[in-house]
Amino acid sequence: MSPPHPGSFFAEESRTMSVNTPLTTRLTTALELTSPVVLAPMDLVSGGRLAAAVTRAGGLGMIGGGYGDRDWLIREFANAGQARVGCGFITWSLARQPRLLDVALDHNPVAIMLSFGDPAPFVDRIHTAGAKVICQIHSLDDARRALSAGADILVAQGGEAGGHGTATRSTFTLVPEIADLAAATAPGTLVLAAGGIADGRGLAAALMLGADGALIGTRLWASSEALVPGPAQRHALEATGDDTIRTSVYDLVRENPWPGHYTGRVLCNAFTARWHGHESRLVEALPDAQTTYRQAHAHHDLDNLNIIVGEAVGQVHDVTPAAELLHTITNQAHRLLTV
Amino acid sequence: MSPPHPGSFFAEESRTMSVNTPLTTRLTTALELTSPVVLAPMDLVSGGRLAAAVTRAGGLGMIGGGYGDRDWLIREFANAGQARVGCGFITWSLARQPRLLDVALDHNPVAIMLSFGDPAPFVDRIHTAGAKVICQIHSLDDARRALSAGADILVAQGGEAGGHGTATRSTFTLVPEIADLAAATAPGTLVLAAGGIADGRGLAAALMLGADGALIGTRLWASSEALVPGPAQRHALEATGDDTIRTSVYDLVRENPWPGHYTGRVLCNAFTARWHGHESRLVEALPDAQTTYRQAHAHHDLDNLNIIVGEAVGQVHDVTPAAELLHTITNQAHRLLTV
Repeated sequence: MSPPHPGSFFAEESRTMSVNTPLTTRLTTALELTSPVVLAPMDLVSGGRLAAAVTRAGGLGMIGGGYGDRDWLIREFANAGQARVGCGFITWSLARQPRLLDVALDHNPVAIMLSFGDPAPFVDRIHTAGAKVICQIHSLDDARRALSAGADILVAQGGEAGGHGTATRSTFTLVPEIADLAAATAPGTLVLAAGGIADGRGLAAALMLGADGALIGTRLWASSEALVPGPAQRHALEATGDDTIRTSVYDLVRENPWPGHYTGRVLCNAFTARWHGHESRLVEALPDAQTTYRQAHAHHDLDNLNIIVGEAVGQVHDVTPAAELLHTITNQAHRLLTV
Repeated sequence: MSPPHPGSFFAEESRTMSVNTPLTTRLTTALELTSPVVLAPMDLVSGGRLAAAVTRAGGLGMIGGGYGDRDWLIREFANAGQARVGCGFITWSLARQPRLLDVALDHNPVAIMLSFGDPAPFVDRIHTAGAKVICQIHSLDDARRALSAGADILVAQGGEAGGHGTATRSTFTLVPEIADLAAATAPGTLVLAAGGIADGRGLAAALMLGADGALIGTRLWASSEALVPGPAQRHALEATGDDTIRTSVYDLVRENPWPGHYTGRVLCNAFTARWHGHESRLVEALPDAQTTYRQAHAHHDLDNLNIIVGEAVGQVHDVTPAAELLHTITNQAHRLLTV
């Protein structure tokens, strides 16, 4: 019943910054951060500007390599400038074009994050390049596989997260169970909480549960620097946490070959209302549905677009510069943990 | 981004007890407790002895009235002796035999908890009897209905919880969103977090997220006083949080008329493996399945019994007296929040 890292999360006041009270954890020490917040490498959303802004604000920015687009990746590393950032990939997609990892490693990333698949084939190349290996996991089995492959950091992602993941576990129970597993079998491995963290309350709660930091997606999806169309962001600000759903309908319409146990959390809209639960009919009507989906992208049709956010969208009420978000989240967590 | 009740959860050291360092929140002040922990009124599991033990250890014990069995209810109130306890009901079932509420109110309960259905028809009788109204909610709509009915305390239950509930929301995102809603519209209403809380880390995290306390089920299901057969408890100790599932198969086999959006979280076993996802076939094979289920109850056949626990079962490794659990949880949370 003891916390795996008692006292590891309390702020040391030895350093000061004008806007960010440092919050020291094993993560900030290991990666030389002042905030234990890591940007989720949201596919095509977490570009170089957003990643650099998170890093400059004291966290770790991660470029969203996603399925893997070489030109996009090169451009976004350039947009990050000299900021120390990392990069994330969808593992099963990276396995189809493994040389893309070299494109990322050529930019001396702080870390490479691998999600959804077997990380083992990539770990040695990442370590040889001097970067940390971050593995996103959704279950104890995932975690054991990642630890055995040599992960430096586990991201324990609950089903409340936006985008792809599994519905099997929630952040609240997965984080302490993974923290206990890591402490018992690989105590040097750090654990980040992911899924549902949107403010300082969530960051403080994640640290209480035994995490060394938090991976934040949805809150930073609604930042000024995120590569998200303004209409989609403004639409999402109106949503509550009850307005999202885990579904496969957008994978089906895009003919994206995701393994069956992964689904994607998106905002509910006319498209999900029509097709979720009627997947066989969607497959039968695929050409028409694909036309609808393509036109939705072309015309910002929010009733049919996939707007990829998590349950935490209910706590997002404005679009704000990333640095301001980092400072607000970190300072609120600091205040809650030390009053 | 400010917490709704800043600083409300920090311990006051003015009172001391031999084994329980008081942890003061709005809940402990309102109900004169020394620990912000409420026993989940688990149907037929939370009997009078368990409820009394939780109350004597500084929390609030709740008898699990569940579907409603008059004789059981009278016996378990007797088993609680002079301890100040409350009682919970399944609202839609109580609506079929509303006089059962009088049986509970005759025992001067501290509170009546209503879950799964419209609380409005019962609120006045409960208030007139001098008891608090606790409403369990799973969504913002539920919460608004409960607030409008006059709830004193909301229990925000995430889908990770054991037993009945919905999979729509998780504890990590539901609690802060409900805390914000209550603070904005009914600031005197308290909020408890439920689903996934099994140790002091979880209690501390719940308070960080904006809750005034925690409702704990699974951890106290595995207490010495819980009305659970020993073989089921010992079996559950072996499970991880990955080994539970939300399903309707046990409602179907028991012909329990639960509204469709509620499912029950249980341990995975041969029965769930056979029927979950094949509900139509289960209905076709109902007589045989019912024989299997009845025999499972008669012979403690854990492969076919419904063992009702939440994801937090992965953090439960022993069967312990409830008082010891309360003290350990409270002291660990206190330590995490004040170091």
